[in-house]
Amino acid sequence: MTQMNSVAMQNGKLHVKQIDIPTPGPGQVLVKSLACGICGSDIHITRHTSDVFDIYKNLGIMANDAGDDQEVLLGHEYAAEIVSYGPNTKGELAKGTRVTSVPILLSAGGAGVGVTPGLYGAYSEYFIVDEALLLPIPDAVPSEAAAITEPLAVGLHAVNRAQMSNDDIAIVVGCGPIGLAAIAALRLQGVKHIIASDPQESKKHVALEFGATEYVNPTLDDEAAKAAALADNNKVVIFECAGVSRLLNDYILRAPAKAKIVVTGVHTAPLNVNFAYATVKELDLIFSYYYQPEEFAQSLENIASGKIAWQKMRTGKVGIDGVQGAFDTLFKPNDHIKIIIEPWRTGELEKVTG
Amino acid sequence: MTQMNSVAMQNGKLHVKQIDIPTPGPGQVLVKSLACGICGSDIHITRHTSDVFDIYKNLGIMANDAGDDQEVLLGHEYAAEIVSYGPNTKGELAKGTRVTSVPILLSAGGAGVGVTPGLYGAYSEYFIVDEALLLPIPDAVPSEAAAITEPLAVGLHAVNRAQMSNDDIAIVVGCGPIGLAAIAALRLQGVKHIIASDPQESKKHVALEFGATEYVNPTLDDEAAKAAALADNNKVVIFECAGVSRLLNDYILRAPAKAKIVVTGVHTAPLNVNFAYATVKELDLIFSYYYQPEEFAQSLENIASGKIAWQKMRTGKVGIDGVQGAFDTLFKPNDHIKIIIEPWRTGELEKVTG
Repeated sequence: MTQMNSVAMQNGKLHVKQIDIPTPGPGQVLVKSLACGICGSDIHITRHTSDVFDIYKNLGIMANDAGDDQEVLLGHEYAAEIVSYGPNTKGELAKGTRVTSVPILLSAGGAGVGVTPGLYGAYSEYFIVDEALLLPIPDAVPSEAAAITEPLAVGLHAVNRAQMSNDDIAIVVGCGPIGLAAIAALRLQGVKHIIASDPQESKKHVALEFGATEYVNPTLDDEAAKAAALADNNKVVIFECAGVSRLLNDYILRAPAKAKIVVTGVHTAPLNVNFAYATVKELDLIFSYYYQPEEFAQSLENIASGKIAWQKMRTGKVGIDGVQGAFDTLFKPNDHIKIIIEPWRTGELEKVTG
Repeated sequence: MTQMNSVAMQNGKLHVKQIDIPTPGPGQVLVKSLACGICGSDIHITRHTSDVFDIYKNLGIMANDAGDDQEVLLGHEYAAEIVSYGPNTKGELAKGTRVTSVPILLSAGGAGVGVTPGLYGAYSEYFIVDEALLLPIPDAVPSEAAAITEPLAVGLHAVNRAQMSNDDIAIVVGCGPIGLAAIAALRLQGVKHIIASDPQESKKHVALEFGATEYVNPTLDDEAAKAAALADNNKVVIFECAGVSRLLNDYILRAPAKAKIVVTGVHTAPLNVNFAYATVKELDLIFSYYYQPEEFAQSLENIASGKIAWQKMRTGKVGIDGVQGAFDTLFKPNDHIKIIIEPWRTGELEKVTG
């Protein structure tokens, strides 16, 4: 067997293609993908390829003359199994050991696994990771749970970036995976007031289960005013976890004075903002992106020790040939939170209840 | 004597008008204006009245149906002399005592003196302040120095908002009064590297005198890259003190990862920003506006104790009938830093060297 199935994103479309199973280079490990989450950023790059590629080009991650038809092998939220080691590796973990890792390749200049043209991603049957970053998955943690480590780390990192006191009032805008991860991290930190805001009332139950102390439908009620009333001399900290660009403007206008807005969504299109309101209210806009390895490890540990109701986050599973169908579902209004791809099998999207 | 001269801004023009000397209300004090600085925001409201009024309306400071032809009696950076006390005052400071204060009227709901339609400003011969906010000016401090307290407090507050360590690298963009005030505050805090950035090479000397450790002409050299090279594991903190909206975009693109950008300018026009760069670099955008009373008092104390070379900041003085001429000078390229109005006298703009 020298070939494998891989899901490639090209021109905004996904297709399953046969490609060679990669050979691990120095310091690298070939792994088999056991489970991989579909991330909001995977949806985003599929819909806004050109915007994302422009940013890659400006950041020097991609050649300036590369076309918008470059392929990306998606998948960066993974649980995998060690298949073989490349040269200059220690091989301390036995073949077959289940692992996860921060999805970057140090050996490729720190480029992101599953988001960068030219690298392999975990929507494929096999892909490449760095030995130095491997974290073994505890036996009691199912692979689909370990695949949720990554979004949990994003939420934990956002909460750590906020440097808030437990008496400050948190608003989490958007109860998708990142919002729920932020809610869980806020609860674990001990923040007393956590207001979950999502226009989909179906998210209320899971938000409260993850640790929100209150749910607000922002189309019916003003959660910023609610938080301000609770805040007294404490700060209001708003976590923008919906990934909706215009919400940044909305919360700059609605935030109370001295509030912090923590932005977790990657907004790739320019936004027209009147900063006068940020100025007169003395807001802090805190942009949060990449967790530290310790935050990633802590997130896996939080799953292993039962501190995170990951089962409530995983709402669907799908085989490798059903990924485009799963994306089609996610493109439309839906009540999924996290869909897990199992690239080693076939099968259409199925609902899972936790 | 019941009338006085006052400088009113209306429809982007300044004119001297005769109006009644105001009567202090409860808790208020009538003061005679001895010296008042021309602030960048005075220039801004004159040029962009409609933008500023829109913000006032949105903030509820101004009636929604008020026209753009509303008058503003400018002047909020002042030294003054106590003339008479209103009802319900203690009168602890003798008449004739020189004072300054944070330019707000608690007795008018915290509205800003010299920036709000309907209030008096210190470009007038007389105006109204709150007794509770009065700070006596030490005898050794000239009135024109005390008038510089306010911009010094703005700079000090921006530096305090940054919460930077002395090993972090500061870049101060724009060496006008706020930039120089920030430089002085950084030096007094003990920050080791303070890079002053201003395209006007004539600012180099004064920037170094205020405490900058290095001057960069940003049209010739990249001060953000310089700072990043010095930073090692410390942060780069960029103070936007030029009040030029597009610079915010420029520094979002040029800032190194994990930098903080402290925005002191009030940008009243919408700006098109691609926040993706702020996200992938995990920037903090910190909006700084209103100092605390302690920061204001500290700034006056810094002048009194000779810690600030205020003489180098004051570059011109003018009588009440020369204010429009002074504004005309400031509207064009010029090398003024701070022009002090002496509303009790007449006279055209004169250069002063400190």
